[in-house]
Amino acid sequence: MVTSEEIRAEFTKIGNRLVAEHLIGGNFGNMSIQQDEGFFITRTGSFLDDPGEPVYVPISGEVPPSASSEWRVHRTVYQNTRHRTVVHAHPPYAVAASLILDEVIPLDSEGKMFCPIIPIAHGEPGTQELADDIAECLALAPLCIAQGHGTFAAGKTLEEGYLFTSLGEHACRVLSLTQSFQR
Amino acid sequence: MVTSEEIRAEFTKIGNRLVAEHLIGGNFGNMSIQQDEGFFITRTGSFLDDPGEPVYVPISGEVPPSASSEWRVHRTVYQNTRHRTVVHAHPPYAVAASLILDEVIPLDSEGKMFCPIIPIAHGEPGTQELADDIAECLALAPLCIAQGHGTFAAGKTLEEGYLFTSLGEHACRVLSLTQSFQR
Amino acid sequence: MVTSEEIRAEFTKIGNRLVAEHLIGGNFGNMSIQQDEGFFITRTGSFLDDPGEPVYVPISGEVPPSASSEWRVHRTVYQNTRHRTVVHAHPPYAVAASLILDEVIPLDSEGKMFCPIIPIAHGEPGTQELADDIAECLALAPLCIAQGHGTFAAGKTLEEGYLFTSLGEHACRVLSLTQSFQR
Amino acid sequence: MVTSEEIRAEFTKIGNRLVAEHLIGGNFGNMSIQQDEGFFITRTGSFLDDPGEPVYVPISGEVPPSASSEWRVHRTVYQNTRHRTVVHAHPPYAVAASLILDEVIPLDSEGKMFCPIIPIAHGEPGTQELADDIAECLALAPLCIAQGHGTFAAGKTLEEGYLFTSLGEHACRVLSLTQSFQR
Repeated sequence: MVTSEEIRAEFTKIGNRLVAEHLIGGNFGNMSIQQDEGFFITRTGSFLDDPGEPVYVPISGEVPPSASSEWRVHRTVYQNTRHRTVVHAHPPYAVAASLILDEVIPLDSEGKMFCPIIPIAHGEPGTQELADDIAECLALAPLCIAQGHGTFAAGKTLEEGYLFTSLGEHACRVLSLTQSFQR
Repeated sequence: MVTSEEIRAEFTKIGNRLVAEHLIGGNFGNMSIQQDEGFFITRTGSFLDDPGEPVYVPISGEVPPSASSEWRVHRTVYQNTRHRTVVHAHPPYAVAASLILDEVIPLDSEGKMFCPIIPIAHGEPGTQELADDIAECLALAPLCIAQGHGTFAAGKTLEEGYLFTSLGEHACRVLSLTQSFQR
Repeated sequence: MVTSEEIRAEFTKIGNRLVAEHLIGGNFGNMSIQQDEGFFITRTGSFLDDPGEPVYVPISGEVPPSASSEWRVHRTVYQNTRHRTVVHAHPPYAVAASLILDEVIPLDSEGKMFCPIIPIAHGEPGTQELADDIAECLALAPLCIAQGHGTFAAGKTLEEGYLFTSLGEHACRVLSLTQSFQR
Repeated sequence: MVTSEEIRAEFTKIGNRLVAEHLIGGNFGNMSIQQDEGFFITRTGSFLDDPGEPVYVPISGEVPPSASSEWRVHRTVYQNTRHRTVVHAHPPYAVAASLILDEVIPLDSEGKMFCPIIPIAHGEPGTQELADDIAECLALAPLCIAQGHGTFAAGKTLEEGYLFTSLGEHACRVLSLTQSFQR
């Protein structure tokens, strides 16, 4: 049994890494951990390195107004996949790649090994359409990019969600930088 | 009633974030909070992550020499808009964009939602002409870029000013990086 | 005689620098120090800025499962060269350069002085083939890049391994950025 | 009268900023403050955010072996100009610019105001030829770039030297990034 206190500590630890690696800026991004018949999610408008009290969202039914406004994606992922955590960030190279490419095919060896195809999900932020597409992507891959919006990574632990986020941005950055060595 | 002590703490908190996100370097940038018939502003030459004592500037009349040299922009914004705070930073992608584009049209979903057009203000730094143009821009948008100089973001709270600064730089960075994925 | 405690402190100190300089993200990267008939290496899956207990690997024979999965490269380097430490990181410019160039020829003066040719090693991560190629490169140079994977730097001290890593990424970054000044 | 203790504290404060802004990596870079008939300089091989004991170098005559290996530039600047401090860093955009351009003409408003022309100095690192050229540049400008090597900034205080370093890198970065907005 995990307490809300322990989840807050875990959110803070992972949030600090996401901020320090510039994977999120400002108060953008959110994360959640599945628990019982629902999940704990970061508060709406919170800074991930100082996330405050986690908010519990049941797997169906009413959602507390203090929950991150992207609760719909998290819930849909838990309803349709076996993932236990979701991490959403706004890494700039991944967002830029998602606006131009149909899918990201990493060239670096970690990307090739852990996420050989990073799919792009479509739909307006906040809509069920986007949530459905993300859940569909995450049923097959640990990471996808909502077009023009940001990454959604899933896993067994928050750490795993963070690692896939970091790995995805690294893959997109390497892809982008290769351009500058082509003479 | 907010004390100078509380404002200094708030300046420090937001300054730390601006520095850590590389939205300002050195002692460049400044910020202010409206209060009574005037506003508190950071000191001239201060580092925003270690801003020292805030300086009170009345809405009209004489300005203390310790006030940030960009007090004119802040005062003009408060005289002509309903904003309560102003944050000025020098984010590199936004500055570069302002030298080439007539206005910034974000492609990322946060940019499209919160600042679909980021106007470019013109005029020499320190002049009333620039201050007027910025105030005019900020009457209609939460964020503008003084050409070749930096961002000015306004809002109800300092946090809001910071968030628009972060969001604007993210939008410009994404715009810039898309280029490298065009093959 | 160096204790495991002292090695952990040294790992943490160097790990903090590698993370702060964005030479590694997530839990990628690893490092080792030669000792007696073997070497201490970071744990598999550990974060280099919080590496936990070092794992001792003998120069031949069985390897504890808690050792970094890249122990094979480290062991092969110690078997075939006179280096005392190995640092492996994933710096983005170096990884991108290794995918396009046959070898990196630095243009900056530190690069030209300390690593005038940075060779690219080939082979699948985790294979003896890659380990052999890296050891061959590091017999002649303090730094090489495993293609699409990351840097391997070696030296007399961990600090030296870190410095060559930093220097190699700087050289690749300068090489990449010169492109943007060609008008 | 300033003590060695106070100088060490000032070196550490400015070193922390140089490192955090990525203006130097590893143990590269050095700085000095003029005092009496000589100057205090950082130690050879020291990390600027943890610089250890400053080393006193007389304005002429023998130099302690613990002094930064670039003492020659610092001494020549103090012999030939009225500057009181020198800061040397390796910012990547400035180094790249110096390899391509004959001089840097900033486009951003701070650059235009404070260093409208950033000259490029020539010569091999460590030579008197380079030291002379840098001293000549710094007689006329607060900042120059040793080609392919790094920035040298001078001023009345260490803070000023740091600020010109930050400003110069910002100017070069803006110049570089404008390229990516040209469609």
